[in-house]
Amino acid sequence: MKKLNQILERIQPLDQQTMEEARSRIDHLIKPQRSLGKLEDIAVQLSGITGKLHPKLDNKAIIVMVADHGVCEEGISAAPQSVTHLMTGYIANGVSGVCALAAQAGAQVITVDIGVAGDLADSKIIHKKIRPGTANMSKEPAMTREEAIKAIEVGIEIAEQEIKNGKNLLGTGEMGIGNTTPSTAILAVMSQTAPEEITGVGANLPKEQLDNKVAVIKRAIEINKPDKNDGIDVLYKVGGLDIAGMAGVMLAGAANRVPVVVDGYISTAAAIIATAIEPKVRDYLICSHASEEKGSAKASAFLGFEPMLNLDMRLGEGTGAALSFNIIEAAAFMNEKMITFQEAGIGVV
Amino acid sequence: MKKLNQILERIQPLDQQTMEEARSRIDHLIKPQRSLGKLEDIAVQLSGITGKLHPKLDNKAIIVMVADHGVCEEGISAAPQSVTHLMTGYIANGVSGVCALAAQAGAQVITVDIGVAGDLADSKIIHKKIRPGTANMSKEPAMTREEAIKAIEVGIEIAEQEIKNGKNLLGTGEMGIGNTTPSTAILAVMSQTAPEEITGVGANLPKEQLDNKVAVIKRAIEINKPDKNDGIDVLYKVGGLDIAGMAGVMLAGAANRVPVVVDGYISTAAAIIATAIEPKVRDYLICSHASEEKGSAKASAFLGFEPMLNLDMRLGEGTGAALSFNIIEAAAFMNEKMITFQEAGIGVV
Repeated sequence: MKKLNQILERIQPLDQQTMEEARSRIDHLIKPQRSLGKLEDIAVQLSGITGKLHPKLDNKAIIVMVADHGVCEEGISAAPQSVTHLMTGYIANGVSGVCALAAQAGAQVITVDIGVAGDLADSKIIHKKIRPGTANMSKEPAMTREEAIKAIEVGIEIAEQEIKNGKNLLGTGEMGIGNTTPSTAILAVMSQTAPEEITGVGANLPKEQLDNKVAVIKRAIEINKPDKNDGIDVLYKVGGLDIAGMAGVMLAGAANRVPVVVDGYISTAAAIIATAIEPKVRDYLICSHASEEKGSAKASAFLGFEPMLNLDMRLGEGTGAALSFNIIEAAAFMNEKMITFQEAGIGVV
Repeated sequence: MKKLNQILERIQPLDQQTMEEARSRIDHLIKPQRSLGKLEDIAVQLSGITGKLHPKLDNKAIIVMVADHGVCEEGISAAPQSVTHLMTGYIANGVSGVCALAAQAGAQVITVDIGVAGDLADSKIIHKKIRPGTANMSKEPAMTREEAIKAIEVGIEIAEQEIKNGKNLLGTGEMGIGNTTPSTAILAVMSQTAPEEITGVGANLPKEQLDNKVAVIKRAIEINKPDKNDGIDVLYKVGGLDIAGMAGVMLAGAANRVPVVVDGYISTAAAIIATAIEPKVRDYLICSHASEEKGSAKASAFLGFEPMLNLDMRLGEGTGAALSFNIIEAAAFMNEKMITFQEAGIGVV
């Protein structure tokens, strides 16, 4: 709790002065005003986050939080829970989806066991297991409040270590069979939406099992009565350890003025928790892609996110975040490498 | 005409066998089937284009065709025509929008004067001027049929030179004050759409001048009577030299089995011409972003394009193509660096 409180105290609003400086420069670059659209907004935001007119974003990492979900015993996922354990090794060894895309982006992948059911010995994995998977949230809280806070603090710790190592652009990723279920529960509670409106098939759940998934999410909310005005309450009752860890990464990014790229549906659920804990975090986050998962558009809209990528993806792991890294760096390149009309010695055209 | 005919003869359908091989491999990678969405489709297309299961896309260039448009004298653009001349130098010297984004993507920018009004001495520009700007298409054909063919052949020549130099991923870009006007005329003719439905403000044309722009486009179509069944007829009557050059790049890409990335609205108009000349070209093109220009969605839909980037951009120059280069390379990385369930020694989950 101490680490979390310390981080929360350090989170400041964006640097308005540097943002204005960036916007003014970008408005005068040799192009029609606003013609680079959201790329301009991202560049301004980057200046606000970092306090620098020309931030460097050349040292990137995706932090992948891996955890299991006790609610899997309710039959809410197509794949067996053991796949989480299996995939952790593949992610750590560079052969999964996020690894391929991160390699193209020149980004490191950091694999964190924050709650996998079963032991993992691989030295390429950061071992921070809070507990071997959550409890079945349709019967009891997914974890204790203390465990949720500890998991957030793991995220903070890992992110701060990476920032200390020089990382200047972070992305969130996750792996955890069943984790669209807690994500949907979080979204349902926070946005006051009926679960049937936002419950999707996750990783190819057969459609005939969707009613059961909706019922499980409803039961979890009914039994646990999460308080939507308390992000940690929602997180420990109907969340997940992976989601908690990602929320921690976001909080640490904000406290350290490092932009954090939000991946897809599960990451957005973590962003909803992080901003519920501290609303100022929102401005330090950059949304990457529009996930194919059913509740994704609702989740993005809840945070006022406008996804830049439209690729019908729904893998998670941080794949969308990895794909957007280059675009975000390109926004900084625009502001740095283009010249203004003044620098060109001509009037605004 | 000889060069164009030779290129047309060489354009073959995509390599179906390699595409099937790629689709089969991608369906068995360690992820839920189809969970990387359009990225998977791009990877399959890249295999079909190149005939290789694992194509390399590590040598990229944006070919920027620059030309003036005689129709500017009708007051259809906010910026004066002289800006084209000015911007050509900035593009060639690395300080314009596309240059910044291409630098981030590690791509070369090739600047081609295919029809700028006024002389350009800069040795960084490839000098291939067909004529110093088109004629005013609202009074007469924009150019002669022979000039249109020559301009296409310039595009072919430049693209083939770059491919010979080792480029394995090309993007189209353009600069030409007024060029949303011929682009809209092309789209109106080919898709049989009323110009008022698709005419936009281009580079910040004041809204009160939009009716005039619509009227000019209508007049150009009425006077010239372009034949929608003859792409070259449409091109020479209501097109542009920049558009012709880009169409040539696309034809050469298809003939040489090199993917060509289509930028925004003007590039899409060129793609409409290229596919009208040879429909097989369509499969060699990759659409990048959804431009903010009014007719853009219609133009993309006409070709069956689904843009991957949603950044509200409308600058042109190849900026959207440059941003999508990394994503396209990431698609190839996915197919190459991820392992299959079989390679992992497990059954499909």
